[in-house]
Amino acid sequence: MPQDIEPQGQSGEVCDLVIWNDDGLAPVITQQFDTGEVLMFAWADRQALLHTLESKQATYYSRSRGGQWTKGLTSGHVQHVHEVRVDCDGDAILYRVDSPGPACHQLRRSCFSHRVDDNGAVHTDRPVIDHS
Amino acid sequence: MPQDIEPQGQSGEVCDLVIWNDDGLAPVITQQFDTGEVLMFAWADRQALLHTLESKQATYYSRSRGGQWTKGLTSGHVQHVHEVRVDCDGDAILYRVDSPGPACHQLRRSCFSHRVDDNGAVHTDRPVIDHS
Repeated sequence: MPQDIEPQGQSGEVCDLVIWNDDGLAPVITQQFDTGEVLMFAWADRQALLHTLESKQATYYSRSRGGQWTKGLTSGHVQHVHEVRVDCDGDAILYRVDSPGPACHQLRRSCFSHRVDDNGAVHTDRPVIDHS
Repeated sequence: MPQDIEPQGQSGEVCDLVIWNDDGLAPVITQQFDTGEVLMFAWADRQALLHTLESKQATYYSRSRGGQWTKGLTSGHVQHVHEVRVDCDGDAILYRVDSPGPACHQLRRSCFSHRVDDNGAVHTDRPVIDHS
């Protein structure tokens, strides 16, 4: 069974408490801090997590680009970090952010725009932000 | 770059749209459907996802136990599934559930019980459900 982490409240310990996978990454859930909306799912490495804590701008590790990625630096839709949390066994990170703009590259509020029926059919929400 | 999925609304297609990793698993975020609380992070394989859709009880793949696992079958804290969603590029699943009891094996409401300070120190919330 996975072991629960045991924080000591010591500066910098988060990087030793998080379980990084073989690629040095841990999963990140990003949530709008006040409404609770789950906006996106991504990954972070140690540097991205530390940059997030220091800069208060949600920063990830992009597996496709192969490097650190601060959300919104090009699009302008920066996610301002209110709180960072870690789960009981240290294998997932939660960014609680204020994301005034769309969090999804499809210009949707959330990346979770596909609803699955009981029979496994998938239906896509209409865009919240429509530029047509 | 990751490719966006293109659902056709066809029965059973979700298993072909989700990106399963080398172990046949995809990450699952579990959220309380009405309050938005992020309760836990886990994994599912195809069978667990299909069982979730059919039974409406949140079912996962336990990497430590090596098998399918319906939350609450032993603890009684079953998670009733209101909605299953998938993200834009199909690499993450969202279970929106009604979880009246604690979602965490530590008998906390959420597994995300550790708050990270700006300096990387980690502090643990006091239990919401206190059996002392």
